[in-house]
Amino acid sequence: MTTDHLISEIKKKKSFLCIGLDVDLNKIPKYLLTEEDPIFTFNKAIIDATHHLCVAYKPNTAFYEAYGLKGWRALEKTIEYLNENYPEIFTIADAKRGDIGNTSTMYAKAFLEDLGFDSVTVAPYMGKDSVEPFLAFDDKHTILLALTSNKGAFDFQTKTVDGKELYKKVLETSKSWDNSKNLMYVVGATKAEYFQEIRNIIPESFLLVPGVGAQGGNLQDVCKYGMNPNVGLLVNSSRGIIYASQDHDFAQAAKQSALRLQVDMENIMINRFS
Amino acid sequence: MTTDHLISEIKKKKSFLCIGLDVDLNKIPKYLLTEEDPIFTFNKAIIDATHHLCVAYKPNTAFYEAYGLKGWRALEKTIEYLNENYPEIFTIADAKRGDIGNTSTMYAKAFLEDLGFDSVTVAPYMGKDSVEPFLAFDDKHTILLALTSNKGAFDFQTKTVDGKELYKKVLETSKSWDNSKNLMYVVGATKAEYFQEIRNIIPESFLLVPGVGAQGGNLQDVCKYGMNPNVGLLVNSSRGIIYASQDHDFAQAAKQSALRLQVDMENIMINRFS
Repeated sequence: MTTDHLISEIKKKKSFLCIGLDVDLNKIPKYLLTEEDPIFTFNKAIIDATHHLCVAYKPNTAFYEAYGLKGWRALEKTIEYLNENYPEIFTIADAKRGDIGNTSTMYAKAFLEDLGFDSVTVAPYMGKDSVEPFLAFDDKHTILLALTSNKGAFDFQTKTVDGKELYKKVLETSKSWDNSKNLMYVVGATKAEYFQEIRNIIPESFLLVPGVGAQGGNLQDVCKYGMNPNVGLLVNSSRGIIYASQDHDFAQAAKQSALRLQVDMENIMINRFS
Repeated sequence: MTTDHLISEIKKKKSFLCIGLDVDLNKIPKYLLTEEDPIFTFNKAIIDATHHLCVAYKPNTAFYEAYGLKGWRALEKTIEYLNENYPEIFTIADAKRGDIGNTSTMYAKAFLEDLGFDSVTVAPYMGKDSVEPFLAFDDKHTILLALTSNKGAFDFQTKTVDGKELYKKVLETSKSWDNSKNLMYVVGATKAEYFQEIRNIIPESFLLVPGVGAQGGNLQDVCKYGMNPNVGLLVNSSRGIIYASQDHDFAQAAKQSALRLQVDMENIMINRFS
């Protein structure tokens, strides 16, 4: 999917919501566990109930790998289902991969070509040649970890390197990489005050923002400092939406939770752009 | 596997060789492609031919994920085969994972518990709470990326943070994490001169050393600066061993290549410890 297409979907749906499909068999409704593929059944119901309220879905691969072959198959079925039925949706493989060049190429093909995701999250620690293989795919996007939403972000990401914080060094350095136009960045919602300086470095890039809701981030603050003229944000919510109910009404409850966020987003967009 | 057990295997086999099982279907003998599971068939033959010459095997998960469900199944069969037939072998899932706490727990369970690897490689960028879930498993090991063997290592890892290079900051910081005794570190062989200072920070830890052979690293130099009284090194070779021949004699050729490295290692150990 092109960035222009993503922007037009955001404007059409008045939403920049990304729903995290982090499916834990201990948290989904118990009656689904008798299904042949409980994970896919759960995802399909969530997607069917919420696709009109969000612009992106983000399965975190850890939750699928945790179930071995069955989990991997559920991930395949989920992305197939999305691509066949909702091709207007932007899909994110939250995999946080990164390896030496030829190995990163294997990961890039797996996620962007074979599975057919629009984007994949990538860790920056191994530098340029670990990320560029992901950037080589046209109309696909590499979402680089910059400033994450967890406490450990302060262990290294905010330490000063060459006179600036490491995450800013990552942002600046990555701009010089081949096909850097295909870069987006992960910036945690729990650190809203950082968005202003981040926007000075990468004014136009899309930011994937985890941490709203369960992790304590605030949507208003994120938008105040992080939004650009094309919105430029994908705000993710996982647990707050997909586990809104653990009963037979789980999909309906997920829809209600997604709707609350979408309405907030619509109001923010109206205030900002009218 | 305990660290003491690993050390005793190294002394018994006079080898600190790790063989990287990075199986690319374009590079294995063509006649194997008609097998039901060419990847596992290839791995099994390599393992049976070389297990007495090495102390560890390291499948890189990228090469398995690249083949989707079939690849994942081949990975499962490979680790099962190793654990059943060669329990004295130290196994490494080269996965380079890392995520927020509860998600890292999913990865840790998948690799260390369900698949049954002895260890997994982990990226440090997200800090303490992204790594500690891996460290929580008794007699399992977390191999943290410190200084990698690729060019991109110079983009961030060698930049100065708080007066020292980032990879040194990673080494020092990680020593304070819970269960840090379960840490090992990735240090690339292409940067042998760095080993001396690394040993000042982590004198006792095991180092997983990629980059000997195909990537240009030199075994003598690595050992000169990196070896400690318990050897403390696992030197990895992948392509140089597993693709030594692409014909019917591939397993025999792999054995010969592994033997050359094992003999070099034995000589180094004799010179060092006698």
